[in-house]
Amino acid sequence: MKTLQDLKPLIEYLQEIQHLSSAISVLHWDQETYMPPGAGRARAEQLSTLGGMAHERSVGPEMERLLSQWVDLKSGQVNGEERGWDEPSRALLREVWRDYHKATKLPTEFVRRYGKEASISQQVWVEARKKSDFSQFAPHLKTMVALKKEEIGYIGYKDSPYDALLDDYEPGMTVAQLVPLFEALKAELVPLLEKIVQSPVQPKTDFLHRSYAPEKQLAFGQKVLEAMGFDFNNGRQDLSAHPFTTSFHTTDVRITTRVDERDLLSSLFSSIHEGGHALYDQGLNPDLYGTPLGDARSLGVHESQSRLWENGIGRSKPFWGYFYPILQKTFPEGLKGVDPESFYAAVNLVRPSLIRVEADELTYNLHIMVRFEIERALIEANLPVDALPSLWNEKMHQYLGIVPDSDAHGVLQDVHWSGGAIGYFPTYTLGNLYAVQFLNQAKKEIPGLEGEIAKGDLLPLKKWLNEKIHRWGKQYPTDVLVRRVTGEPLNPAYFVRYLKEKFTPLYSLS
Amino acid sequence: MKTLQDLKPLIEYLQEIQHLSSAISVLHWDQETYMPPGAGRARAEQLSTLGGMAHERSVGPEMERLLSQWVDLKSGQVNGEERGWDEPSRALLREVWRDYHKATKLPTEFVRRYGKEASISQQVWVEARKKSDFSQFAPHLKTMVALKKEEIGYIGYKDSPYDALLDDYEPGMTVAQLVPLFEALKAELVPLLEKIVQSPVQPKTDFLHRSYAPEKQLAFGQKVLEAMGFDFNNGRQDLSAHPFTTSFHTTDVRITTRVDERDLLSSLFSSIHEGGHALYDQGLNPDLYGTPLGDARSLGVHESQSRLWENGIGRSKPFWGYFYPILQKTFPEGLKGVDPESFYAAVNLVRPSLIRVEADELTYNLHIMVRFEIERALIEANLPVDALPSLWNEKMHQYLGIVPDSDAHGVLQDVHWSGGAIGYFPTYTLGNLYAVQFLNQAKKEIPGLEGEIAKGDLLPLKKWLNEKIHRWGKQYPTDVLVRRVTGEPLNPAYFVRYLKEKFTPLYSLS
Repeated sequence: MKTLQDLKPLIEYLQEIQHLSSAISVLHWDQETYMPPGAGRARAEQLSTLGGMAHERSVGPEMERLLSQWVDLKSGQVNGEERGWDEPSRALLREVWRDYHKATKLPTEFVRRYGKEASISQQVWVEARKKSDFSQFAPHLKTMVALKKEEIGYIGYKDSPYDALLDDYEPGMTVAQLVPLFEALKAELVPLLEKIVQSPVQPKTDFLHRSYAPEKQLAFGQKVLEAMGFDFNNGRQDLSAHPFTTSFHTTDVRITTRVDERDLLSSLFSSIHEGGHALYDQGLNPDLYGTPLGDARSLGVHESQSRLWENGIGRSKPFWGYFYPILQKTFPEGLKGVDPESFYAAVNLVRPSLIRVEADELTYNLHIMVRFEIERALIEANLPVDALPSLWNEKMHQYLGIVPDSDAHGVLQDVHWSGGAIGYFPTYTLGNLYAVQFLNQAKKEIPGLEGEIAKGDLLPLKKWLNEKIHRWGKQYPTDVLVRRVTGEPLNPAYFVRYLKEKFTPLYSLS
Repeated sequence: MKTLQDLKPLIEYLQEIQHLSSAISVLHWDQETYMPPGAGRARAEQLSTLGGMAHERSVGPEMERLLSQWVDLKSGQVNGEERGWDEPSRALLREVWRDYHKATKLPTEFVRRYGKEASISQQVWVEARKKSDFSQFAPHLKTMVALKKEEIGYIGYKDSPYDALLDDYEPGMTVAQLVPLFEALKAELVPLLEKIVQSPVQPKTDFLHRSYAPEKQLAFGQKVLEAMGFDFNNGRQDLSAHPFTTSFHTTDVRITTRVDERDLLSSLFSSIHEGGHALYDQGLNPDLYGTPLGDARSLGVHESQSRLWENGIGRSKPFWGYFYPILQKTFPEGLKGVDPESFYAAVNLVRPSLIRVEADELTYNLHIMVRFEIERALIEANLPVDALPSLWNEKMHQYLGIVPDSDAHGVLQDVHWSGGAIGYFPTYTLGNLYAVQFLNQAKKEIPGLEGEIAKGDLLPLKKWLNEKIHRWGKQYPTDVLVRRVTGEPLNPAYFVRYLKEKFTPLYSLS
């Protein structure tokens, strides 16, 4: 039986590319955290050069030479007897060929043109959002949509052209699977939201916006990260305008947060969210660094890890049973007279709002529906870009009952489309669904989990995730992974049940 | 007349290599400032891969193809009429060929072996210094010396084998020039030091070691950096264990410092020193980034910029005339009752000490003499490595009148030799000599310079250095640059006169 040992030359080559990619990530991290303002142009050029080198190596003759020793480059079939390879080796060859094959479909000229247009488009978007001027951004968005359609032409698809894009972020997922899933979800979420909005019971949240010293907020967030098992010996947290997680290696995973004196929860929940991502990256197999087996499964699965911690744990009763007294001790002034029940209710406020990244765990998914439906209309039905603002506002009204006061708070709010990331948004809702399904299973398998959490011990959950999800990397396709972990395919019923069980008592729903 | 425009393909190729080198510098900077402790091994691998790529490109077939269009690769002669090129183009071709030619002389196998041994040797040195155990380090130093001799064999030399090493750090400098220069200097410095040591007048320095809040120290240092013209829009200062300067582009120059509550001067003078380096890097020509014309002339010239600011300005009367009242306002407790004259005297304490990096501006050069003479003995006279500790102590006694209490404070104190940097030390003293000669000229050319400094205006000096030195990069060989700036070759008399003029009144010397 052949093993990974037999693929050593390929693995070493992949690791070399990974070193380059990790350097790119360091440069990005620095750009968002410490880089002086005047250095932007030079940094862009450095990144572009390194990106070109990494791409060159991913599809170049050396990759071809190595890969073709074991795989038929046209079909992806393993040469000779497939049974002659162990499971990790077959998975590695499958995933490496997949990436290679996809990359080679795109002409170099297209990749360069795309990169250039995306960079310009993103810069224009920043300006357009500032001025809330969609018309300034529209020509560039048209270019990006045209480029995505050109890309679809190179990549090909079976059922929906949108599938070709989706596959970049959630390999294996298709419109045919997503549509019924999202429809079923919408059918539950919209009426549930209506009930909540109309409930006479509404939590108070004013105390969340008193004065909370930033250093103390950060110190509390760090305590929570430590409890989650975030390894500060192999990672760190810094400040940036938009929170993110980046990994240079399992031994060097960095998260960022932002902190607002008048918002007790913003920094904390961003730390827990990014901490969830970071545990995944720290929990990957270091020996397979640089290979697909040492890399996260998909964006959806990655998001499941952040959402599981942020919402499933961070907005749960047992968590605050332990941490609320500590928080109250940290901020005796701000939280004076706020009892644990009121705090728990405030943390779980559900209220339609305009901005996706600030949305609660219920309405968040309706924000995603709006984007998913618009994306499909752009790609599948040739919706003109100019129709976006009105369609956006219409859908916001339909699903959330509110209409943006400006395009800056509407169609212009997210960076994704400006850089061509169409097909990315669904992974956020997939993450929410996977998260609850995983957590549900963890509760079954870890004896007394909620009791442990209520004692502040989050490590049994972290270890379970390490064991069940993190350490496998991309060895299994996502659907197989979900079945292996939970015993069944993705099932949105868990998520719906979770919301109903949480919000029925909180809002005294019938 | 052909110009740099005609060399565009070569320049673009050099800039691509520079982007890679800048990424390497970012990774090094991160390693010293923010990298989590566990990430060391992964970082070393990333750096090694990127370093290999940069080296490959510097000597590879594409470089050969580009360069050979204009230069005979064997001799470095410009093809066709040398007069047909303008001065910057001739300089660029001269310097690019020089680096290329030198790099191609070293077999790839040697470069790899050297890199590996140097890395191990440096790690062993760290341990050996901690334990003050020279015998642990000796076998690795033997290996490094043997490797340097092997390197000399590949590079070749005319007069002294040591020249082949020196040329890496101070191109064009030779033992034949250095020996009389250093002898002349020693002949002045040793008796001057003796007089100072024996003087009945000795400054008090106890107040420098009271309690000085680190944040306030850093804020004061930042004020001085701003006054020097350090551009925080295109640079920043962070903390690290050992202060250093690194540049990723003229728009992104980073310095570091360390701060000790019980030492008022350590952080400040490191900021001024690194700030001087940084002004050079920020003052290079951004349009020629990545080419020798956009790169610092030599280590000696670079050091001249740091020492000019650190000593020539930072330990001068006019500087403290302006800054001492501000410092005293910053630290009213610590500096209570310390008059400006006492402070100025304390800042200029001359006293033999064991550690080079803490030495004053007079004895510093005697520390360099010790190292230079030992290096020559190793390379030219086959001095056995095992004889180093005793030779070190003997020379320390001879020139400074003191003997280290341990090898950690003696022969093991500097990192340089462990990584094979033999021939580097002389550039520190060259920097001191250039610094005073440049400053002397600046005083002649800038009307009322000392008066401006006494008003806190350091920018006329910064602009003069930008104009006379920084913007030229490597266009002129160092000796030509020195003559262009000062009207004469390097002349240590300026340095000796400067010391005598400063220390005669301070120590009431006759």
